[in-house]
Amino acid sequence: MNYPNGKKPSRQVNQMNKEKTSFSKRGMTLEEDINETNTFYLHSNKAVIHKKPTPVQIVKVDYPKRSAAVIKEGYFKQASTTDYNGIYQGKYIDFEAKETKNKTSFPLANIHDHQVEHMQSVCEQGGICFLIIRFAFHDETYFFPAVKLFSFWNSQFNGGKKSIPYNKIKEVGIKIPFSYQARVDYLKVIDQLYF
Amino acid sequence: MNYPNGKKPSRQVNQMNKEKTSFSKRGMTLEEDINETNTFYLHSNKAVIHKKPTPVQIVKVDYPKRSAAVIKEGYFKQASTTDYNGIYQGKYIDFEAKETKNKTSFPLANIHDHQVEHMQSVCEQGGICFLIIRFAFHDETYFFPAVKLFSFWNSQFNGGKKSIPYNKIKEVGIKIPFSYQARVDYLKVIDQLYF
Repeated sequence: MNYPNGKKPSRQVNQMNKEKTSFSKRGMTLEEDINETNTFYLHSNKAVIHKKPTPVQIVKVDYPKRSAAVIKEGYFKQASTTDYNGIYQGKYIDFEAKETKNKTSFPLANIHDHQVEHMQSVCEQGGICFLIIRFAFHDETYFFPAVKLFSFWNSQFNGGKKSIPYNKIKEVGIKIPFSYQARVDYLKVIDQLYF
Repeated sequence: MNYPNGKKPSRQVNQMNKEKTSFSKRGMTLEEDINETNTFYLHSNKAVIHKKPTPVQIVKVDYPKRSAAVIKEGYFKQASTTDYNGIYQGKYIDFEAKETKNKTSFPLANIHDHQVEHMQSVCEQGGICFLIIRFAFHDETYFFPAVKLFSFWNSQFNGGKKSIPYNKIKEVGIKIPFSYQARVDYLKVIDQLYF
């Protein structure tokens, strides 16, 4: 099965069933945690940060009489940018979020060329750009600045590792604190690093 | 037929056929013009601004063996934010683009509650937020600051007009210059207003 971007479409379906399942806060995906965090940031006027919709290539659409248009054939496209962006106190925020089951490293295959190029462009324009990496096994979530990613990314094409060791992420990244309302409280890290 | 956001899905199809039709620059939609402009900005390292994917609610997905997942049932969702955002020289940029065939006014029905709320939040965070409005009949494209929109928007609920008169847009807005490479050169207006 070809999932662009390693994303299972079942996530979409989870989204739709969210209201049914969200009474239990345990076992939430990183995406769900970040979406809830962003909703909290928005409602408390802290920041305006949204997940971009999943890019879909629409091939066939039906127009039944007196009802909504139905997409009958479509395909998942690979994202050309990161998944999340927005504004926090005048500053442009841009990030990608990835969860790994790997215990000892973060495989670079989780990210794509286009996304790294995008992150480089954002850094050049002076944006705050980073990865949010969750190690499911360790139950730890890290803020990893994009500028730190680029050397790991480039070295893989020169015989270097195809992953970032867990220890490096612990050393270079910043652990994102958890709170009940902001389950992945990444603005705390941004406050510390950029303000 | 119910198009969320007044968007005909045929635009999607146009996107896919773009390579076929783009040899002729005449008759391009505002969306196509802005996308080309953004590509030019990106490649010349001026700014990083992208259109967000059309939000789709995915209901049914097939997973044929040895080939890509196929969306078999999906619906267009109403956008909760604006269509375009990104970064220009460290500043957060956010806008919605609308084309009207109306000669004398811009109908406010082209925009939705959620979008206006989003624009208000972006303004509060200090972002550069605006509408790009094209009057197809006059072949004119205007930069209309979001802060100017809000009073028109609110007054419609207090017995005011449900549209912004063309003359007001001419007066309050700024005409966006055209160039071959940047067909809707809105950064020129931003330079003038914010730098």
